[in-house]
Amino acid sequence: MKRVKPRITVLTLAVSDLERAVAFYRDGLGLRTEGIVGAAYPNGAVAFFNLDGGLKLALWPRTSLAADAGIPLDPPSATEILIAHNVDSEAEVRAVAQQAAAAGARIVKPPAATFWGGYAAYFQDPDGHLWEVVFNPDFDSLG
Amino acid sequence: MKRVKPRITVLTLAVSDLERAVAFYRDGLGLRTEGIVGAAYPNGAVAFFNLDGGLKLALWPRTSLAADAGIPLDPPSATEILIAHNVDSEAEVRAVAQQAAAAGARIVKPPAATFWGGYAAYFQDPDGHLWEVVFNPDFDSLG
Repeated sequence: MKRVKPRITVLTLAVSDLERAVAFYRDGLGLRTEGIVGAAYPNGAVAFFNLDGGLKLALWPRTSLAADAGIPLDPPSATEILIAHNVDSEAEVRAVAQQAAAAGARIVKPPAATFWGGYAAYFQDPDGHLWEVVFNPDFDSLG
Repeated sequence: MKRVKPRITVLTLAVSDLERAVAFYRDGLGLRTEGIVGAAYPNGAVAFFNLDGGLKLALWPRTSLAADAGIPLDPPSATEILIAHNVDSEAEVRAVAQQAAAAGARIVKPPAATFWGGYAAYFQDPDGHLWEVVFNPDFDSLG
């Protein structure tokens, strides 16, 4: 069997309001971006954030994504994905959750111990995308 | 301002049928996994795939995700995310799209030139998650 390379290069989150989403990730969480680029092209307006490991996070209007892919625009769904952000301590879980909440995130699960021995909080970004901020004592840090 | 670390450690895709989803990614695309683990725990059954750059892809039932996060189960939406898989040539775009289709993916945009000078195809996995297989002549390969 041929094996597809185990590679995700860009994770694009579809958003209803691009300016609001950029403000959340850039100003609220402090992720670095050049801001909205590509606005001169049809469905081109997008913002990129460089993440660790060569991955990029992109924010793109839902309507642009649907138009570009040629599929119907579905209503938003909060139970499609979960993005995990591992941190180095329980205190950091609390700090990131607090920072996200201050930036406008909805905390859906406040910081608490998990059944498997970790510590985690869940929040939704302004478009409902679900994040887990998690400390796993057994997890090798990527930092 | 405090900066959250630019780190995504696990991208979890919510699925309706875990066995089917594992078969697609493992047997269809050839990604490596230990298979379904954690089934002994409530909402614990999950499959992990190690990707480049320290990222993991996880497949987890939608119902487990909703229960664990404590949020209502929304209907699936195909316009929440787009996962980009950069490859090294136009031929590789065609080969991956063909392999995905043979594995049961729905090709929503056949391989074709993009307006910005690249070459791409879009497919949906069996749960509707949207992937872009893309060759960008200006993109530094991560491989």
